[in-house]
Amino acid sequence: MNKRIEKQFDFVLEIDKVKNVCRQTHLTNHGRNENDAEHSWHMAIMAYLLKEYANEDIDISRVMLMCLIHDVVEIDAGDTYAYDSEGLQTQKIREEAAKQRIFSMLPEEQAAEFVDLFDEFNAYETAESKFAHAMDNLQPLLLNHSNGGSDWKEHQVSVDQVYQRHGKTRLGSEKLFEVTDCILRENVEKGNIKVLNIL
Amino acid sequence: MNKRIEKQFDFVLEIDKVKNVCRQTHLTNHGRNENDAEHSWHMAIMAYLLKEYANEDIDISRVMLMCLIHDVVEIDAGDTYAYDSEGLQTQKIREEAAKQRIFSMLPEEQAAEFVDLFDEFNAYETAESKFAHAMDNLQPLLLNHSNGGSDWKEHQVSVDQVYQRHGKTRLGSEKLFEVTDCILRENVEKGNIKVLNIL
Repeated sequence: MNKRIEKQFDFVLEIDKVKNVCRQTHLTNHGRNENDAEHSWHMAIMAYLLKEYANEDIDISRVMLMCLIHDVVEIDAGDTYAYDSEGLQTQKIREEAAKQRIFSMLPEEQAAEFVDLFDEFNAYETAESKFAHAMDNLQPLLLNHSNGGSDWKEHQVSVDQVYQRHGKTRLGSEKLFEVTDCILRENVEKGNIKVLNIL
Repeated sequence: MNKRIEKQFDFVLEIDKVKNVCRQTHLTNHGRNENDAEHSWHMAIMAYLLKEYANEDIDISRVMLMCLIHDVVEIDAGDTYAYDSEGLQTQKIREEAAKQRIFSMLPEEQAAEFVDLFDEFNAYETAESKFAHAMDNLQPLLLNHSNGGSDWKEHQVSVDQVYQRHGKTRLGSEKLFEVTDCILRENVEKGNIKVLNIL
């Protein structure tokens, strides 16, 4: 086997570990916790199906690829729950180190390409990144809503926390934010999402 | 929520079930059985990374999408192991029925698009389909090889069976078949793949 293909196969085997990175979201029908590979697969299909709702013209292949690889760094860095304020403070440092180690297993130009793609996703600036983030928000929201908002209840998530996260869906898709907003309101009304009363 | 987006979201939630369709392949490091969503995620990334080895020019986005959705029918039809000769006889009928039910949850033109993509994958005729199939073969081969060929040993798979399947990798990629052939020979030599001696 030549060196190039050997590096590519080593990377392929390395990212198998993504299947063991557990998330806080539960599968539909009150299933087990989801893992990062499943979440990424779901996001990529959703991106393709829902592309008509993107605010701007997007290169859908780039969005799909972004969805597929955005969580690979969690092999080293672990999953950071969207509402874990402590974890979120160190997330960037942990993920930067992971990015260097994992992507540099690839042949040089492929490593550079994946690092670029990962950085683009995190910078939240391009139309593709904004739409990929909308999927990253919407995918667990739909699963959680289908389970009666049990993940929000379990973590006692508050209305300001959910809007801080899901408000950004609007950057990628006004239309999908509208639907997100309806779902969030319904879950606030039902008491699944906490309202903090400051008297 | 309008009817169109409702149908799209219903489909998104339906395909969550792919995460519970268990395959015979085990994750690296002698892990648990893999599921269809994980397998499809892995295949799509591999397709992108290894596209330089395709025999013909390919539309890589189409290949990736094919990889992502090719196993959705197994929600109803179940996984058919590559070396289950009885199951393989009824696979087509089971998957056709599943295809109709599952994809028709989508808005009409999206349903038609996904059915076309699924049919194209199964017809094994286009360059994209042949390369996607090469990934469908190579992905479990790499996992299994990393585990010392334990899946072949467990199912007492024979050399003619593995070449019947993996020989077709050559239709999508001569180069990846070359590597496949090396891996298979090594596993035959080690006794992980059975050789039938007809005296």
